[in-house]
Amino acid sequence: MIAAKALLFDVFGTLVDFRTSIAREAAEMLRPLGYALDWGAFADAWRGEYQGALEEVRAGRAPYCKLDVLHRRNLQAALDHFNVGPLSEEQMDEFNLAWHRLDAWPDVPSALGRLKRRHILAPLSNGSIAMMIDIARHNNFPWDAILGADIARDFKPKPRVYLAAAEALEIDPPDCMLVAAHSYDLKAAQALGFRTAHVARPNEHGPGRGEAAPTVPVDIAVNDLGELAHTLKT
Amino acid sequence: MIAAKALLFDVFGTLVDFRTSIAREAAEMLRPLGYALDWGAFADAWRGEYQGALEEVRAGRAPYCKLDVLHRRNLQAALDHFNVGPLSEEQMDEFNLAWHRLDAWPDVPSALGRLKRRHILAPLSNGSIAMMIDIARHNNFPWDAILGADIARDFKPKPRVYLAAAEALEIDPPDCMLVAAHSYDLKAAQALGFRTAHVARPNEHGPGRGEAAPTVPVDIAVNDLGELAHTLKT
Repeated sequence: MIAAKALLFDVFGTLVDFRTSIAREAAEMLRPLGYALDWGAFADAWRGEYQGALEEVRAGRAPYCKLDVLHRRNLQAALDHFNVGPLSEEQMDEFNLAWHRLDAWPDVPSALGRLKRRHILAPLSNGSIAMMIDIARHNNFPWDAILGADIARDFKPKPRVYLAAAEALEIDPPDCMLVAAHSYDLKAAQALGFRTAHVARPNEHGPGRGEAAPTVPVDIAVNDLGELAHTLKT
Repeated sequence: MIAAKALLFDVFGTLVDFRTSIAREAAEMLRPLGYALDWGAFADAWRGEYQGALEEVRAGRAPYCKLDVLHRRNLQAALDHFNVGPLSEEQMDEFNLAWHRLDAWPDVPSALGRLKRRHILAPLSNGSIAMMIDIARHNNFPWDAILGADIARDFKPKPRVYLAAAEALEIDPPDCMLVAAHSYDLKAAQALGFRTAHVARPNEHGPGRGEAAPTVPVDIAVNDLGELAHTLKT
């Protein structure tokens, strides 16, 4: 069986249901201002700007910045798309913090508690350390450390982000397992020697719009984190 | 009252009783090999090399390296001083990991649990991320993140180490409080705008050999972390 010392987790989509959370936060922010939008579509529009914004940094066309900065810019684009606003600076700042209050998928908190008994656990996310702390406190995630973009100063799937996490833990990649709901992320980690576990999140982007199964070879494929805890224990 | 969002903790001496732990580990390692030393004096000798080794890095005469590397070199010096050895590479590696298994002062684990309800908690130590994870798992420290030397790539009391922690948290120094048993550490943090709390550890280096009170002005001085939790809550 696979004996990874450390489990490193993608967060957006893998551990937290960002679409439902952002749709709810958008409704809470904009409904009192008189707007009635398709809140799920608004969440999709905001997140839809994500990879393009990251690519500017990954490609070296923009310096590294914390994900909040990109989210703030992407929020403006989403608001423009839906002809909303302008909002005040204060409203924009508060709205942007929605990404710090994302709710976990229901299987996650208790499974992380079980996994922590035998494994070192850390997020390996494109979110900042401060964002990961807020999400962890919101959901009782029992992290051993916060790794990811902030310590590498670049964004996944750039190799440096995965390697910086393994180096910080002083654990070689073959003893680290990336747990993610996205095949592109697992593929990048596997190319560097990491173990990989795919978690099915078939409704990540709305009903039926998510990866029900990996599209690349992985070490383990599970339906939720409870199944991962069971599989790694046996 | 003082309302620090984040509490940052010195670890060696402040949270863990390294002298007793190292003395015990030294006895466990060396007694079966036929040695009968003053184990407390051995711990003092090993730790006695600490500041000198750090100063090489702080002064720029040596590149940053993880504290384990310096501990390993200092272990050799301590063994030589007591005419012990040579030990095998494997014995040296195992011995050196004693610093990953340090026991907390008895007031620490439960007080950290109470402090976590209202504050973000992180170590701000010269120890590496991996070392801090091991010490936290050994003692059930509920950290929100691991900060300190590894993310700054330098050692306290260099300003960069404190500032890198505040930057990682995205919390300004006046909203961060350093908690430490050593006045030199608190003085360096205070000069950068951090709040400061001194914890008395009068027996850190043996009976009566530790700071019973701060020698510099601080925001709070307490006898243990339980008192800190009480003071910050009122």
